[in-house]
Order: sequence, then structure tokens, then C-alpha cells
Amino acid sequence: MNLNQINEPFYPTQMMRNVHATHPLVHNITNYVTVNDCANILLAAGASPIMADDIGEVEEIQTICGALVINIGTLNARTIDAMLAAGRTATTLGHPIILDPVGAGASKLRTETAKSLLESLEISVIRGNISELKALYAGDNHTKGVDANDIDAITEDNLIESIALAKRMAQHFESIVAITGAIDIVSDSETAFVIRNGHASMSRITGTGCMLTSLVGAYACANPHKKLHATVTAVALMGICGELAHASCEREKLGSSSMRTRLIDAISMLTPEILEQHLKCEVR
Amino acid sequence: MNLNQINEPFYPTQMMRNVHATHPLVHNITNYVTVNDCANILLAAGASPIMADDIGEVEEIQTICGALVINIGTLNARTIDAMLAAGRTATTLGHPIILDPVGAGASKLRTETAKSLLESLEISVIRGNISELKALYAGDNHTKGVDANDIDAITEDNLIESIALAKRMAQHFESIVAITGAIDIVSDSETAFVIRNGHASMSRITGTGCMLTSLVGAYACANPHKKLHATVTAVALMGICGELAHASCEREKLGSSSMRTRLIDAISMLTPEILEQHLKCEVR
Amino acid sequence: MNLNQINEPFYPTQMMRNVHATHPLVHNITNYVTVNDCANILLAAGASPIMADDIGEVEEIQTICGALVINIGTLNARTIDAMLAAGRTATTLGHPIILDPVGAGASKLRTETAKSLLESLEISVIRGNISELKALYAGDNHTKGVDANDIDAITEDNLIESIALAKRMAQHFESIVAITGAIDIVSDSETAFVIRNGHASMSRITGTGCMLTSLVGAYACANPHKKLHATVTAVALMGICGELAHASCEREKLGSSSMRTRLIDAISMLTPEILEQHLKCEVR
Repeated sequence: MNLNQINEPFYPTQMMRNVHATHPLVHNITNYVTVNDCANILLAAGASPIMADDIGEVEEIQTICGALVINIGTLNARTIDAMLAAGRTATTLGHPIILDPVGAGASKLRTETAKSLLESLEISVIRGNISELKALYAGDNHTKGVDANDIDAITEDNLIESIALAKRMAQHFESIVAITGAIDIVSDSETAFVIRNGHASMSRITGTGCMLTSLVGAYACANPHKKLHATVTAVALMGICGELAHASCEREKLGSSSMRTRLIDAISMLTPEILEQHLKCEVR
Repeated sequence: MNLNQINEPFYPTQMMRNVHATHPLVHNITNYVTVNDCANILLAAGASPIMADDIGEVEEIQTICGALVINIGTLNARTIDAMLAAGRTATTLGHPIILDPVGAGASKLRTETAKSLLESLEISVIRGNISELKALYAGDNHTKGVDANDIDAITEDNLIESIALAKRMAQHFESIVAITGAIDIVSDSETAFVIRNGHASMSRITGTGCMLTSLVGAYACANPHKKLHATVTAVALMGICGELAHASCEREKLGSSSMRTRLIDAISMLTPEILEQHLKCEVR
Repeated sequence: MNLNQINEPFYPTQMMRNVHATHPLVHNITNYVTVNDCANILLAAGASPIMADDIGEVEEIQTICGALVINIGTLNARTIDAMLAAGRTATTLGHPIILDPVGAGASKLRTETAKSLLESLEISVIRGNISELKALYAGDNHTKGVDANDIDAITEDNLIESIALAKRMAQHFESIVAITGAIDIVSDSETAFVIRNGHASMSRITGTGCMLTSLVGAYACANPHKKLHATVTAVALMGICGELAHASCEREKLGSSSMRTRLIDAISMLTPEILEQHLKCEVR
């Protein structure tokens, strides 16, 4: 881990200890595909989940929580209103709001909803793949369903341009941007972290992105004055647990569904020491 | 197992055999977070699940089923109407209705909906954590999201008062009350069973409460004249399977997602003999 | 494998290679019980899932996909409209539409909705259990919830009549019919394939039918000119993976939830060689 260019000291293990100590209660308005995994990963990470999406209760639920995660994976007219209502409460209370613009670019409804959430609410972190982020930023539209398009992928070859783009995106959205893929970039417009944890087999299961977004909610909630570092930590620990899960599946000759199980297992057993030992992250 | 104070003989293994013999068909109107686990645990236990929540079919679906499980974990205006409609059909047909007031106390919508269901329908069993039950009973409001608040926890120190409270609650609601936590209490107002099965690691996964509520539906359906004993059996076997799952995860150094898998595995492999051997239950 | 009566050569391994090569993007409007398993099995099989059910986006989403899977497992007024809208787009674009009439016969809403979808849309494949198919075909009503009724079961004793029935159903619905159970029959009215892969333990978990229907979507999409063979291949590989999963659970003394995990694992690790080696299928 090369963090010698860092401006502010970065203590990922402290971020993690703060989650374990405070058990942040995270309100999720999310899709019905991966909602169970999101709840289980929050519990595995030492946080508490609550899922509530009815307009008749989301504001009240948000007041007892510490963060709001909005995921548009299976959005509909009913839940979009609830996202906005809960988001306004979170904005008023100063709670971090994390947006996962699942499939932005794949339909006008998704693109417009994500843009409208970004305009109406004070979003702390946007977590998506590069195609989704580009669809919101430039109106580019390479989204292939809910997965990133290969032509958009961040690689070592386009890393410098990708970092610059991430910084411009963060400035444009006035939000931390977490672009995840083979290489992850997290930026708040001034600083960018490049994270090289993770394994390709994570893309063989649904929900790794959604789960990460929920984790960012827990980490931002427990580390409110260090949201950039909190986001980097969540991104890195998800990648590390993906590596550990992959290794365990390889060893036991298990397939993709076991990969999902072992990923959440790894989150539940991760210690600050393992996090520190496996972290591959640099500041740019 | 000390059951010598029992008024009526209690045959948990017979309860279980009745489920295996009759494959009760249980209609669930439940939340989208844990619905898959509820369906799978019913199948694992030898019952059959059907999930249906549209007002256009819930009454008809209820007529072909033997029990109704209502879980308000992700309630909304549309599903509340369906809960009431299905519940009226179940009441008319004399089918047991099991209510899981997930998050009662966390929002007015949840508290009021649970109260309205209790008033409108003939509920056989309410299964919840102590904070949820208190929110409905006394208007106390210590609910921390969907998990029980520590200050409410039933312990050996407050057990006598807790048993008395459970009995009063059962009288007040005119329903069997199953309060689950580290120590479980099941009461029909006259008798209270204290169950000491289970393991703390069950709270690291989502849905153990929801799954248990669905199981109670199957057990009450297969043992219609012994609903108190049926509920005690379901509560105990869930706890026993939690113990078995935890032991297997410990042995193989697995984490929280494997705990979920092994819990349902244990339900599917449980025999009357294992149930009897591990049961830790007393009458008070 | 006895395929010597076959009219057209049947190359199941080629069907599989076509899925791996083209990564078909499959649009699912499905139920919230097994939706996560459907997404994960599509990924495991080398396809890509997208779940979208809002009337405001389903037509646009369908245009970027190659197939549509409609599953009525938890249908409601809102999603029925979306099924019809997406289906009309798919019909116009010539995309295969796969219908899973979950619980047809269990309620008028389900039976009528499935019939209306069959009348309004150009359905390529109907995949259901025998009770569901009979409810749609003859108005028979032996549906026991979402599971087939034993009195309807296809056995070696009634196989000749069952094959004839499957052919008549295919003619009546002007669609390929895939009737799955202990013995599976797939027919396009002229030809019928009988598949004897699979294991009884697959019925101890929820979603094997739904997952298979999604797989048929991927296989039909990647093999548009061989939809009958594509469907047979998907049905057979699901059965084969059920056998492999069951064997692995037996060996390690695991229960029903592990069966689910190992089933998806097997799909993710299946090779054309294993498929060919285990295939038990004949033409009638």
C-alpha cells in the first residue's frame, strides 16, 4: 500500500472499527432482486439494515436511521416518490445519502430518475459502474443492461484519463464518485483513490454493486467527517472479501452461488488486520 | 426438558410428524427482503408455500390454503388492503392467522397497521421481538429499526416479569404471543413456555424472525387444536436448528451467509429424535 | 442418449456454446420470491439478466434485450400491464417470449392473466408443471398452490398419453410447451422430447421452475432458429445440474438450502462435455 502522497492521513482500520462500534442503522430503498443480500451484508459488516419504501413511512423511518441508500434497480412510480421524500428528510437531517444509479442509460426512466435525485437531494456518494456514471454525466449511452459495457472499462491503459474523468464527475455532481470495475476509482474532485482489490469472478454474481452501495451507507454513517475515506474503505473491503471468497471457492472447487455465500461470509469475518494486510490502494 | 408442570401433555415430535404427514399449504403475504427464505424454510420443513399479495386473488388463494401468514416488513398501501382481505377470508374459514409485526414502533404506519390487523382479524399467533410487541401493547416505543432494542431484552434477571407481561399481552390481544430473542416466551395468557434454544449468531442474518413466523403458520395449520404447542414446537425447532447451524459453521470456519444456508439445511434434515434430544423448554 | 429417431440433428453442446459466446441479455418480469435466483442462474449460465417491471420503461428495456421472460408468480395489476406492454414490444421485434404461468389454476387472476398473455402475445415457449398447463388448456383445475398435484403427475405408466397431450397443447397454444416434473416433456406439436434428467430433491427448494424458465429465455435467445432444441437443452441441463448438486449434497451431508447453492454452482461450472455425458433424452 502506497499512501505517501496522501494529504490527510487515511486510517481504514479506524473506519472499520467505527462501524463495529456504532452499528449504524441504514435505511435502504432498493430493488427486490438483491435486497436480501444488501440486508445480510449490512448485518455481516456490523451495521443494521431497514428496508422501507412506502411514502407513508419513509420520512419517519429516515429520522430513526443514520443514512439513506437509494438504489434504482427495480424502480417504479411508487418507489420513486418514496426515494424523493426520504431523500429530502435525509438532506434536512444531514444524513449521508448514497445513490446507486443501477441501469442508468438503459432507459430514460432510469437516467431521468437518477438525474432528478441528484438535482433534488444532497447526495454524498454516487456508486456505479463506468457506463452508468457516463450516462449521467455526459449523456453517453453505452449501458448494456445493468452491467458496464466493455468499451467503457477502466484499464491501466486509460487510467490517467479515467482518474481525470472521475474528478470532473465528482465536481459536476458535487458528490463523491465511486466508479467500480476491474479497477476502482473513488474521488471527491480533488483527490482520487485507485483501488486494485477484487476479482473478476465477482461479476458472475448479481448484487456485488448493490451490496457495496449499502456498505458505503454504513461506512459513511459511522465516519461522517471522513466520507471520502469511508467510501474508499468500503470499496476496498468489498474487493478484498471478493478475493478471499474466490480463493476459498477455488480451493473447494465451488461455483458462482458459493461465491456469493463466501463473499458475505468473508465480510462477516473480516478483521481490521486482514483489511490492512490486503489493501491495494493508492492516491492520485 | 422439564415439562412436569404441564397441564396438558405436550408432544412436540407429534406436532412435527403432523406437518410432515399433511404438507400444509401456507399463504404468505410477506416482505420482499426475506420472502425467498420463508418459501425455502417452509419447503425444508415439509410444508408448501404460496406467496400472493394482489387484492384480486388473495381471497381465492386463501381458500385453497390452510393458514395465512401476514408479515408487515415492507408493507405498502396496496399490500395492506390485501392483508385485510385475505385475513377476513381466513377468519371466516377458521384458518389460523399468524402476524409478524416487523418494525412495529419504528413508524406510525407499521404500528397502526399491526393494530388494525389485530382489531379486524382473528389472529391466532403474534410472533415478534419484545420491542415490537411492547410497541403494540403499551405504546412503548423502543423499536430500533427492525431489531429489538437491548434495553427491552428478556434476560434471566427479568424473566418472571417478562413471563407475566407475555401472559398479559396474550390476554390483551386475545392471541397466542411468541416473543423471541435470547430467551423465547410463548404464552396463551394462562400458560407460558420458556424456550432456551437458539444461538446469538442467528441475529447476524436477516430473516430468522420472518422464517420462524412462516414455520408457525405451518405448525398451527397441521395442529389446529393445539396451536399453543404448535407454536412452542416451531419456536424450539428454529432455535435448535440455529444451534446446529452455528456448530457446523464454527467447525468449518464459515461466516454469516453460510449460517443462513446451514440453518435451512438443518430444518430440512431435522428428525423428531433430534428435536426431542435438543429441546430446552419449560412451562411457567 | 437415444436420438436416432430425430428428424433434425440435435446438438445440445452447440446450443450451450452459443449462449457462452453471445451472453444474451434477458429481460425478466418475474416474481419477487425467486428473482435473485433467476438473476444468478442467468449469470451462472453465461447470460446477463435485467429485471424491470415498470410500465414507464419496459418497452425501452425490451428493445435493448434479446428475449423476454414473463413469470406470473407474484403478479399484480401494475405488473400485468407491464407484462403486456413489454410483450407487445418483444412480439414486434421478434424476440422470443417465454411464459411461466406460476400457479395457473390456483386463482382466476392467474389463469385469466396467463390466458390473456397467450392470446395477446406471440409466446415462443410455455414452461410450467403439468397442473398449470392443464389449467390453461382444458380448464382442469388440480393446481395445488404453485406445485403440481400428484394426481396429474407424468409417469412411465401414462407417458404415451402425456406425450400426446403435450403435442396437442403445443398445437393449441401455437407455442413450444415444456412440461417439467419427474419426467419432462418438451414439444412443438410435431416432435416431443422426453427428458429423464433431474432429481426429486429439486422440489424441496423454491424456484427451480422459475430459474429454468429464465434459462430457456437465454437459450432461445442465443439459438433463435432452434427454439425447440434450445428449450430441450435448457431443461436437460437444469436436470443434470440438479443431479450433480444432489450428489454433492449427499456426499457432504448437506440439506435443502445447500442444494440450491450447489445447483447454481453446477450451472456455473457445467461444460459441454458434462452436458453431453449426462444427457438422458429421447425423441418421441
